[in-house]
Formats: sequence, C-alpha cells, structure tokens
Amino acid sequence: MDPRLDIIFARRSIRAYSTEPVSEDDIQSLLQAGMAAPSASNRQPWHFVVITDRQQLRALADVHPYGKMIADAGLGIAVCGDPQASDMWVQDCSAATENILIAVAGLGLGGVWLGCHGRPERERAVRQVLGIPERFGVLSLLSIGHPGEEKPPRTQYDPSRVHRQAW
Amino acid sequence: MDPRLDIIFARRSIRAYSTEPVSEDDIQSLLQAGMAAPSASNRQPWHFVVITDRQQLRALADVHPYGKMIADAGLGIAVCGDPQASDMWVQDCSAATENILIAVAGLGLGGVWLGCHGRPERERAVRQVLGIPERFGVLSLLSIGHPGEEKPPRTQYDPSRVHRQAW
Repeated sequence: MDPRLDIIFARRSIRAYSTEPVSEDDIQSLLQAGMAAPSASNRQPWHFVVITDRQQLRALADVHPYGKMIADAGLGIAVCGDPQASDMWVQDCSAATENILIAVAGLGLGGVWLGCHGRPERERAVRQVLGIPERFGVLSLLSIGHPGEEKPPRTQYDPSRVHRQAW
Repeated sequence: MDPRLDIIFARRSIRAYSTEPVSEDDIQSLLQAGMAAPSASNRQPWHFVVITDRQQLRALADVHPYGKMIADAGLGIAVCGDPQASDMWVQDCSAATENILIAVAGLGLGGVWLGCHGRPERERAVRQVLGIPERFGVLSLLSIGHPGEEKPPRTQYDPSRVHRQAW
C-alpha cells in the first residue's frame, strides 16, 4: 500500500460511533469533498441534505433496513441527484458519495454508505423523512461520526479481476 | 481546504500527458485503490481491463467520442461491472472509478473519466475493442498518464446545494 494513498485504504465501513458531535468545520470539509467529485460534462447534478438533529437521525434509522446505526451517528448526509440536470446522475452522485467517505477517513471520522437508489422502498422512505421533492433521486444515505470501532486499512486486491490489454 | 484531504481536491480532469510510461508499481497501486472501494453487501462486482499497448490505446481513442487523449496516455483502465454479481454494480463501479482517480492524483499522475455506461454506443464500441463479454457492463474508461498540463486544486463548493435537517 503506497503511503500516499493512505486515506483511500483507511476508508472502511464504520457503524459504531462515540457520542462526540461532528464539528461544523468537518461538515464543511465533507461537503467540499463531495462537490469536488467529477461529473459528466461537469453538470454537478447533486444536492446534499445534512442531518444533525437527533430526531431526524432516529427517524432515518427507523425507515432504512440497514440503517439502525444512524440513530447514534453525529451526522447524516443524504446524497441526492437531479435527473433533469443529468442522466448520468447515478454515476456522479456515487463519485460524490465516495469522495465524502474518503474525506471521512481523512478527517479521522468513520462512516458507512447506506444504499437507497435501486431499492425503491428505501428511496421513498428516506425521501419522505427528509422532504426531498419527487423529481430528485436519493442515491445514498451516509451515517457518519467519531469512530466507536477500529478497522485496519485494506486493499481487497484480487488479481483475478485484472485483465491485460484485453479481457 | 483541509490539508488532510489534499488528494481529493487535487483530482482534476487531466487530458494531456508526457511520454513517460506509468510504472508497474503505480498500476498496482491504482488497482488496489479501485478494489478498496465499498460495494453493496461487499459483492465487489468489478473487473478492470488494464491497457498499456499503444495500438489498443489508439483503437480506444478512435471509438470514444471524447477519448482522443487516450491515444497519448501511458495507461488506460476500463472499469467493468457484473450485473449478475450485483444490481448495484453502477454505483459500486463508480466508487471504484473515483477511488482510482483520487489515487491518480495521490501518485502525482493525471487522468480523466470517460463515461461509457448510459451511452450504449460507447459501451458497445469499448466492449468490442477490448473483447469484454456481453454480460458485463462497461462503466467507464480511464485515461491516465504523467500530467502534461497543470490544474489547481478546487472544491466547487456551492452552498445552494446544501439543505439542513430536511430539504
């Protein structure tokens, strides 16, 4: 693992958090990281709903089947996309989501990607809790906090997935 | 911009390259970064076609409408997904693509994301050049090399895209 890429390998799915809140500075950095992602024709078809309100976080935990941990998270971010701005919004919002998660690791925080788009019932439920207009897609919900568990960096490298010059 | 997130903000779309080849060590690091991405239920539905052969790179440049620069790139990587492994392959392969592009910046290289999936004619053409089996999707083609142009880091932060507690 090249040490220049530490924050990429340090990103792990962290589902347990301490009670320490996420600072406003860190929230700003995470949003900057998300918006620094590339997008098709640079259309930036993304929106971010930032949730620190405990009741809202609990409501999200109640409706997402894999989202229990967000009830105890310092921060939730719903990454939404505008299909009218770009038909590549799923790719673009996935890149923005991944940028935020790498930034989470870079800041010493922990977080996990809860998939929404592709599972209509989850997308609908998160949209309802957060009042997201019908025309926007909900790509992901991120549960973020100061880590309450530790996981080592890893590459998951598998040579069988690599093809040279052609398949 | 928090300096701990430098490689995220340093990632820019770099379309001009020097003639210096990309080292095998760097290629390995980029593939490690790609496979370190999160995926739904950790299914890792990705495959990577690594291209350094000049004739193959030229053939790709000929068929991708925005891919002229890959003819002069030291390295091409096609990120492919297996829909039979996961119906979330588009999100997962987008995260893997973004991981590679952040790693490109981290290693002092430059690169650009050429979208394929969502544009059937591009996906078909790249599949044909690289001999990618019909059942796999082609999410993206990455053009990578030692940078021949410089772009400053940036956040693209736009406060109008941020919503608090609810939309």
